Amino acid sequence: MKTSQSLRIVLDWGTTSFRALLVDAEGHVIARTESEEGIQSVPNGDFAGVLQRALVPWRQAHGPLPIYAAGMIGSRNGWVEMPYVSVPADAAALAAQVRRLALPDGGTISFVPGLNDPTAYPYPDVMRGEETQLVGFGLGEDRTVVLPGTHAKWARIEGGAIRRFQTFVTGEIFGTLAKHSFLAKVARKPETPDWAAFARGVAVVCDGPPPGALLSHLFAVRTGWLAGRVDPTEMTDMLSGIVVASEFQEARALGWFAEGEAVAVVGDDDLVEVYRRTGEAFGLRITVGDEDCAVRGCLAIAAVVEGLRGAA
Amino acid sequence: MKTSQSLRIVLDWGTTSFRALLVDAEGHVIARTESEEGIQSVPNGDFAGVLQRALVPWRQAHGPLPIYAAGMIGSRNGWVEMPYVSVPADAAALAAQVRRLALPDGGTISFVPGLNDPTAYPYPDVMRGEETQLVGFGLGEDRTVVLPGTHAKWARIEGGAIRRFQTFVTGEIFGTLAKHSFLAKVARKPETPDWAAFARGVAVVCDGPPPGALLSHLFAVRTGWLAGRVDPTEMTDMLSGIVVASEFQEARALGWFAEGEAVAVVGDDDLVEVYRRTGEAFGLRITVGDEDCAVRGCLAIAAVVEGLRGAA
Repeated sequence: MKTSQSLRIVLDWGTTSFRALLVDAEGHVIARTESEEGIQSVPNGDFAGVLQRALVPWRQAHGPLPIYAAGMIGSRNGWVEMPYVSVPADAAALAAQVRRLALPDGGTISFVPGLNDPTAYPYPDVMRGEETQLVGFGLGEDRTVVLPGTHAKWARIEGGAIRRFQTFVTGEIFGTLAKHSFLAKVARKPETPDWAAFARGVAVVCDGPPPGALLSHLFAVRTGWLAGRVDPTEMTDMLSGIVVASEFQEARALGWFAEGEAVAVVGDDDLVEVYRRTGEAFGLRITVGDEDCAVRGCLAIAAVVEGLRGAA
Repeated sequence: MKTSQSLRIVLDWGTTSFRALLVDAEGHVIARTESEEGIQSVPNGDFAGVLQRALVPWRQAHGPLPIYAAGMIGSRNGWVEMPYVSVPADAAALAAQVRRLALPDGGTISFVPGLNDPTAYPYPDVMRGEETQLVGFGLGEDRTVVLPGTHAKWARIEGGAIRRFQTFVTGEIFGTLAKHSFLAKVARKPETPDWAAFARGVAVVCDGPPPGALLSHLFAVRTGWLAGRVDPTEMTDMLSGIVVASEFQEARALGWFAEGEAVAVVGDDDLVEVYRRTGEAFGLRITVGDEDCAVRGCLAIAAVVEGLRGAA
């Protein structure tokens, strides 16, 4: 039996979905609640109302609990627009910019800031949410971490801090082409990933001169189908292989890794597997972090915040 | 006054639109009719019915006229699936594969075949419609021609024939991102192109290491906006600059041109200007062909077909 004192709520409130996790002090998830009330569906900016209604059962059981939120809920389109902390940054630097709001029921919600890299080309790069995953994965070891997603991030951990990072719009290119391009009408996505088709997409990029020819390589999904050499059930995974391998090719050219090095992949299971396979095709030693990194990161930042406020 | 004997109808019947041009023997457009009855909207494959209804006024004035059609109407999703002629190919090679159907009113429709390049990587590349534009632009001079579009083509004319070509899905990437990505909600497209914003997009690609980093460069549209350095009215043209300049960068790396060379751009006015400006940013001497190339190409192929059949 957990005492309510050790419980916290970690929010994953994105553009199209709402998710709340009830976690203990060690980061174990005790309960979860989800809905499609994403940021964009909240009427009149009534984020407090949506949140309070979603958490009624937990409040009845435990009273008001401290809530922590990272990611897009703290963006221009969300509840409050949180600042971006500049790299290099660690949990303490993020905690120092956490903003706490009082809620009508006597509880609080604390927003974790985003991160920016002012050295990025051509404009400062930004992340919201991934900084919390990186903290949860651990900043104790110097290493390169890739976080797959709509806007995938490559980040460098050095000297106990997030040192620099760079965004690749890989997931967005894959998603918009899969849904809206020449292949949307022909492709039939299989129930489970077709890893052989995925590997063929990776090979199109790795075997083809020159590096970075994404606009021409993408057409292979169509020409392969027209030539009878790519089946409609293979097209989506082949597209995925072309796009993700192109990200690795760009990342290598941008100095994020060299063959034979170690790179960590942190994210949800399906994308981690996609990136693990691609990384190995590029000669990398891949280690993986799990979905719990976000929760652990939130709690690590919370511990600093509560320590700071407790000491004050 | 033209005699009906010298008149022909050239069809531009694509996936989402129908256009017919009434042209004289010199390629002058005497009348045109357009609708949104694209291939995908034709019920039960009744292409003949849609066509006959659209052409009633011209048939009443001139009787049944020879109709020529290139492009997607002759594809797997169109009226008849025309073969692809392999490069190298000229007007005679295309004319030899033209397929003529009799229509219920006693007229005929002749479909121009597509073109494929069996030497392309990783699968034979294909075009449908652009081969007619190339013939209309002229095969008499050795040169490199780029045809902007959803699936832009770079083609090499040598020894009086289309020698090889390659597709870049530039227009598709631009269109899907402009409509469905992170910038769709923020960007406000200006009435006329913002060429300064376009040039900034081109510069992001040209000034940034390394070549071919499209997946990272695309995010500049968002980070520039977040940093207050790109206005919502500039985002669409900046995206266009990034994508089209990436095509030129890939084309250069793939050996399609070197700095200082001449390249011709053939297509509709707006896209030709986009490609002209990009080509000049890459140090090319750009010449342009107009929209009439498609009509002239159709008539050149028609002349061979009719000569062949007349002689037979």
